[in-house]
Amino acid sequence: MSADIIPLRKRATEPSLAPILALTADGMNAVNAVILDRMQSRIPLIPTLAGHLIAGGGKRMRPMLTLAGAALCDYHGTRHHKLAAAVEFIHTATLLHDDVVDGSELRRGKSTANIVFGNPATVLVGDFLFTRSFELMVEDGSLKVLKILSNASSVISEGEVDQLTAQRQIETSEERYLSIIGSKTAALFAAATRIAAVVAERSEADERALEDYGRNLGIAFQLVDDAMDYDSDAGEMGKGKGDDFREGKMTLPVILAYARGSDEERRFWQDAIQGHRSSDADLAHAISLIARHDTVSATRERARHFAQRAIDAIAGFPAGAAHAAMVEAAEFAVARRF
Amino acid sequence: MSADIIPLRKRATEPSLAPILALTADGMNAVNAVILDRMQSRIPLIPTLAGHLIAGGGKRMRPMLTLAGAALCDYHGTRHHKLAAAVEFIHTATLLHDDVVDGSELRRGKSTANIVFGNPATVLVGDFLFTRSFELMVEDGSLKVLKILSNASSVISEGEVDQLTAQRQIETSEERYLSIIGSKTAALFAAATRIAAVVAERSEADERALEDYGRNLGIAFQLVDDAMDYDSDAGEMGKGKGDDFREGKMTLPVILAYARGSDEERRFWQDAIQGHRSSDADLAHAISLIARHDTVSATRERARHFAQRAIDAIAGFPAGAAHAAMVEAAEFAVARRF
Repeated sequence: MSADIIPLRKRATEPSLAPILALTADGMNAVNAVILDRMQSRIPLIPTLAGHLIAGGGKRMRPMLTLAGAALCDYHGTRHHKLAAAVEFIHTATLLHDDVVDGSELRRGKSTANIVFGNPATVLVGDFLFTRSFELMVEDGSLKVLKILSNASSVISEGEVDQLTAQRQIETSEERYLSIIGSKTAALFAAATRIAAVVAERSEADERALEDYGRNLGIAFQLVDDAMDYDSDAGEMGKGKGDDFREGKMTLPVILAYARGSDEERRFWQDAIQGHRSSDADLAHAISLIARHDTVSATRERARHFAQRAIDAIAGFPAGAAHAAMVEAAEFAVARRF
Repeated sequence: MSADIIPLRKRATEPSLAPILALTADGMNAVNAVILDRMQSRIPLIPTLAGHLIAGGGKRMRPMLTLAGAALCDYHGTRHHKLAAAVEFIHTATLLHDDVVDGSELRRGKSTANIVFGNPATVLVGDFLFTRSFELMVEDGSLKVLKILSNASSVISEGEVDQLTAQRQIETSEERYLSIIGSKTAALFAAATRIAAVVAERSEADERALEDYGRNLGIAFQLVDDAMDYDSDAGEMGKGKGDDFREGKMTLPVILAYARGSDEERRFWQDAIQGHRSSDADLAHAISLIARHDTVSATRERARHFAQRAIDAIAGFPAGAAHAAMVEAAEFAVARRF
C-alpha cells in the first residue's frame, strides 16, 4: 500500500516536530544513554567539554531521523541506537570544529566551547568524538553502514573546506552554494536515514528512497537556517544573528539579493562580503536590502521545493505514524521560525 | 627458529634506518602512490594543503612499520599498502591539528600549514584526511583492522587532550608523561605494526608481539624526540628548537631536571613552565640546567630500555632481513641525532 502524498501547507495548524518527537521518544532515550556513556573518558576535560555542547540541547534531528527511518521500515531491533549515537557524534565533532573555524561566540544561545575552553581543547575533543563515532560503528560491525558513514564524513569535510574557500567570494553562485550545503549538511542527513534501511535489511531501492528523503530534508533545513539569519520576522536564533553576514558567508539570501540588486546595492554587498561593512547599521542595511528583494521568502520557497522532494521520495512506504511524522518533519523544515 | 637477540649498540657503525628503508622501498612506492591518489579532492585547497605537509618529507615511520611487520610475517599480498596509507593519513591529520593546537610555526624545517594556509583550513583538511583514512580501512573491509585503528585513533585523541591538560603543569610526573606519550605517539606505532600480523593472518600471540614492538618503539622515538629539543649536541631538528620549552610542555628532560634541581632551579622551572621565562637567554639557561643534571642522557637511557623491550618482543620471529631491519630501527630510535 502506498501512502497518500500530503501536499505541503494544507494543515489546519502549523507543522511541528511533535509527531516525530513522539514517534522516536523511547528510542531517543536509548540513544541519549549511548551518547552520555560514550562521551566519557579517563581525561576529565573530554566529557566536560563535550557535555557543554551536548547538554546545550539542539534538536538531535539526525539521530531522530535514523530512528524514524527505522520505524518507517518496521525495524524492531536495537542496532540503530548505537548508530544514531555515532551519527550525532559526527555532527557534534563538526559543530565543535565549525565554531573554531568561524570563531563563533554563541551557539543555541550559549557561549561556544571554543570561547569557554579555548580553540586547542575544542579541536582535540572534536577529534575524540569523531574517533568515538567510528568505534561505535565498528562495534556494530556492518561494513555497509561503515561505508555509508565514512563516505558521508569525507563529503562533509570536503564541503566544509569548500565553504571556507567560498567565504568572502561575492561571485559564489546558487549552484555552488547548493553543492556546499549538499555536502556539509545534507550528506549526514542522507546517511542518517539511509542506514535505517540498511539495519532493517530493506532493498537497495528503499535505501535510496530514505537517502533521498534525508538529503532533500537536509537541504531544506540548511536553506531555512540560512534564511533565518536575515529574517526580520524570525525569532532570535540560538546562534548569533548576523553571524553569516559578518563572516562573509555567501548564503542564498545574499546570493539572490546580489543578483537582483542595483549597481549601488551590489557595491554594498561587495564591500560587506569582503568584510569592510560589518557594523550593526551595515547588518540592518543588509536586512533591508534582503527584504526589498524578498530573498528570505525566495530562500524559503527553494526549501519548500526540496521538502516536497523529500516527501515524494518516501511516497512508496506504507502510511502510518512513521510516514506521517516524517512528512510533517519536512513541512516543519520549511515553516519553522526557530 | 628463533632469532638471536642482538643487544643494543654492539655494532661497528651507528645504527641507521637504511636496512628498513631498503626492506620496504618497493612497498613504500605503492603506499606513496595510494597517499598521493587518495589525498586528491574536487576541492583544490585540500590536496594543496595536504601536499604541503606530505611533500615536506618526514620519515614515514608508521607505514614503513606496517610494511616491515608484513615482511616479518612473510606476507606477500598487497592489502597492507592501503592500510599503511590509512595509518599515515591518521598521523598527518594529527600533525595538522597539533600544529594548530600548539601554534607551531616550523615543522621539518618548513613553515607549518597553519602559518601558510591559516588555522581554519588546517583544521578542516586534517578532518578530511582523517575521514579519508577511514574510507581506506573500510575499503579493505577487515573489521579486526578497523577495530584496532579506530581504537588507536580514539586513544591518540585522548592522549592529545591529556597532553594539553598537563601543559604548564610543573607537577606532571614521569608516570603521567609516559601515559601521555603512550597514547599520543605509541598507540599508532602499535596499531601500525599489529595490523601487519592481522593482514598476514597470524596468531593472536604474533599480533601481540608486533603490537608490543610498535608500542615500545613509539615510546623510544618520542623520548628521543623530546630529548633532542634540549640537546645541545643534537643537530637542528626540523621543528623549531625550544618549542617544547616555550609551550610549557612537561617532557622528560624537564621533569627530571625539576626533580633533581635545587630550590632555586625549581623556581626557575616553575616560572618557565608557566610561561614567564621564554627568552633565548631563558632557553639557554634551561639547556644548561638540563646539561648539569644530565637529563638528556637520562631520557635517552629510558628510550634505550623501551627499544630493548621492542627488540625482545619480536625475538620469537625468524631471523632474516625483516627481523634485522626492525632490530636496527629500534637501535636507531635511541641513537639518532635528527
